[in-house]
Amino acid sequence: MPDPGPDTVELIRAKRDGRVLTDDEIRWLIAAYTGGAVADEQMSALLMAVYFQGLSPGELRAWTAAMVSSGERLDLGSVEPPTVDKHSTGGVGDKVSLVLAPLVASCGAAVPQLSGRGLGHTGGTLDKLESIPGWRAALPVAEMIAVLRSVGCVICAAGPGLAPADRRLYALRDVTGTVESIPLIASSIMSKKIAEGTAALVLDVKVGSGAFMREMPAARLLAQTMVGLGAEAGVRTTALLTRMDAPLGRAVGNAVEVEEAMATLRGEGPADLAEVTLALAREMLALAGLDADPAAALTDGRALERYRTMIAAQGGDPDAALPRAPFTQVITAAESGWLRALDARAVGVAAWRLGAGRARKEDPVSASAGVLCLAKPGERVEVGQAVLELRAEDEFRFARAREALAGAVEIGPEPPEAAPLVIERIGG
Amino acid sequence: MPDPGPDTVELIRAKRDGRVLTDDEIRWLIAAYTGGAVADEQMSALLMAVYFQGLSPGELRAWTAAMVSSGERLDLGSVEPPTVDKHSTGGVGDKVSLVLAPLVASCGAAVPQLSGRGLGHTGGTLDKLESIPGWRAALPVAEMIAVLRSVGCVICAAGPGLAPADRRLYALRDVTGTVESIPLIASSIMSKKIAEGTAALVLDVKVGSGAFMREMPAARLLAQTMVGLGAEAGVRTTALLTRMDAPLGRAVGNAVEVEEAMATLRGEGPADLAEVTLALAREMLALAGLDADPAAALTDGRALERYRTMIAAQGGDPDAALPRAPFTQVITAAESGWLRALDARAVGVAAWRLGAGRARKEDPVSASAGVLCLAKPGERVEVGQAVLELRAEDEFRFARAREALAGAVEIGPEPPEAAPLVIERIGG
Repeated sequence: MPDPGPDTVELIRAKRDGRVLTDDEIRWLIAAYTGGAVADEQMSALLMAVYFQGLSPGELRAWTAAMVSSGERLDLGSVEPPTVDKHSTGGVGDKVSLVLAPLVASCGAAVPQLSGRGLGHTGGTLDKLESIPGWRAALPVAEMIAVLRSVGCVICAAGPGLAPADRRLYALRDVTGTVESIPLIASSIMSKKIAEGTAALVLDVKVGSGAFMREMPAARLLAQTMVGLGAEAGVRTTALLTRMDAPLGRAVGNAVEVEEAMATLRGEGPADLAEVTLALAREMLALAGLDADPAAALTDGRALERYRTMIAAQGGDPDAALPRAPFTQVITAAESGWLRALDARAVGVAAWRLGAGRARKEDPVSASAGVLCLAKPGERVEVGQAVLELRAEDEFRFARAREALAGAVEIGPEPPEAAPLVIERIGG
Repeated sequence: MPDPGPDTVELIRAKRDGRVLTDDEIRWLIAAYTGGAVADEQMSALLMAVYFQGLSPGELRAWTAAMVSSGERLDLGSVEPPTVDKHSTGGVGDKVSLVLAPLVASCGAAVPQLSGRGLGHTGGTLDKLESIPGWRAALPVAEMIAVLRSVGCVICAAGPGLAPADRRLYALRDVTGTVESIPLIASSIMSKKIAEGTAALVLDVKVGSGAFMREMPAARLLAQTMVGLGAEAGVRTTALLTRMDAPLGRAVGNAVEVEEAMATLRGEGPADLAEVTLALAREMLALAGLDADPAAALTDGRALERYRTMIAAQGGDPDAALPRAPFTQVITAAESGWLRALDARAVGVAAWRLGAGRARKEDPVSASAGVLCLAKPGERVEVGQAVLELRAEDEFRFARAREALAGAVEIGPEPPEAAPLVIERIGG
């Protein structure tokens, strides 16, 4: 019998026209989308309406809860130490997780780090670790928990059972120009972390040219939104806003970042990477109620040892030689002076074009491709000195990578002003 | 090789962020959507972005031209009399086309009326004519032109070759909450009318409770937009804004509207229907450069004769008895007084629920279902007098139709103020 119209269209129009949807309506939408009763073209129109109209705090809470409910919520009750995880909104050269998880575990917490792959100019933790021969990202839940219990930390792929609605929504947003919405970003991140079962969470919200959020107000709003969602779901959550104008550390790619992470675990890493990692570690340990000095664990070998155990537990050989790219080119300083800026986004795009990243989620990545920053902002360079080293498996990739780097290196007569890496802390 | 991203996403984001798309970008989008390279979920996100950001005059021109170019543009050069068509944005009881096409043809113009089916609470001209036994809506282009040449008018379905991009876009908009956008409505209507090949066009833009546009400013903007698009495409176009607060005439449905149209062609129709029809006929004849009095053709039998010839040319029997619904119910006046209002939308929804309309485009419609308005605003009614007669093929349909009519009949101690049916004229 004819009816005024399908519910889905009414709900899209309601959101479009600025009406606040009820909890029931949102639950229905997410469940019906996951079940196929709401079509992709309807959900993408709704997502674009959300982009323009936003979500109220109540809508956002219901939306996130519906995504969590679309799958299983892990029970980490069998893990004895307090659980605490970290999530980064994505930066260039951001290999923090590789250092942080074993570091915090070596200080007494359990770190269940379910990670993602890179898409676009920011790399993915799993892609980096997969440059280690034998290492497996995909662990069944029981194995993930077993590694977490025996090692104290685990970095692996989120299984298909965790927030499957988010998985479908994220793929849809990626192709429909609806990624850049604070409530949609916040609910996507938090639904996965809530479903993962961690008791506490520290968010590393990157801000700057290489970050998803380029400006402080948007980054702060995203951080506040996520911290609020965590608290409402019973996950103790805080956030650090950290600067992402230049790459973090010197290595940008996959194998090159693993090498730099190992150096940092030996206490020999770049200062900026160590600084951000230690700030996040202190935040995590505080949330876990542990009184430990993470800096000591970086120099006394405990964190490195924990890293080796973690890699081995997932089939990896921590001593294996990592792939090395056959082709390299350098970019040299056009003048002498102080390196004032090294644009993180440009370096990220260059590494991506060299093969370290993917344009589509089914693309493979090159383990050995990437960019090494031989000089970093605040350092002196002489004309002709190599500033960047580009690595690739295919020579044809260099031309477009170099294009991305046009204007990325800024040299001047004065050193840049020092700016703190950790800008602000949000939460409890 | 990885690339910063597919063009489609860039274009969606550009529109979303308020950038004006170039002619080439719009041509590419429409062609790629028609060809399948742009997916439904991408186009619906773009359409929602257009809903919020609008289209600039240049974008709208390019968008409309791209939809025309997606198919054939008919050549009516072999038709000797000046061609002129009419399009209505849709009202309740709007059987104007059935009277107008033969009327204007009998005055010397050629009327190539490519029409649509009803969706929602407004009926479709083709659905109405299909209640005539034998009448065929689908004519091949050659036959359509042959009928137009021999009879001087033809009312038939737009073939699949006309603006196929619009056909797909319209179906997509219908399920994604993106119908209510003035540039998208204007380009949808005008692309079909431009492709149809008519030299001139009069638009009947309905405004009021039963119309798509409920308020004058939106209706005026839509009319101005379409008149501009017509002029740019070389189609002489004007528009009349006409009132649609109460049903036009007394019959709402399919067969019942055919009967009322025939009465009007005999000069015995309701005054409001004749008034709107004659105003549109005068406008069409003026655009065609013809100096004829359409009122005379309604009383001297010329228009009726032309109607009979047109129906017969498409296989219909103009003398055949029309289907009659087996079940009727009446709604009576709750008090005595003046009928002040009879809500067009409520009557339209009731007729739809009785079976005269469809919820999905593949649904069949009932030829005999509908609503007869036994009293119209401005008339006196006594308590208990029948105001509406509902007709249906199935008794179960009455309950929901009556629900739609709750509050639709307004009776008061004073007659309503008289309001002109033709509110405003736009164009040349």
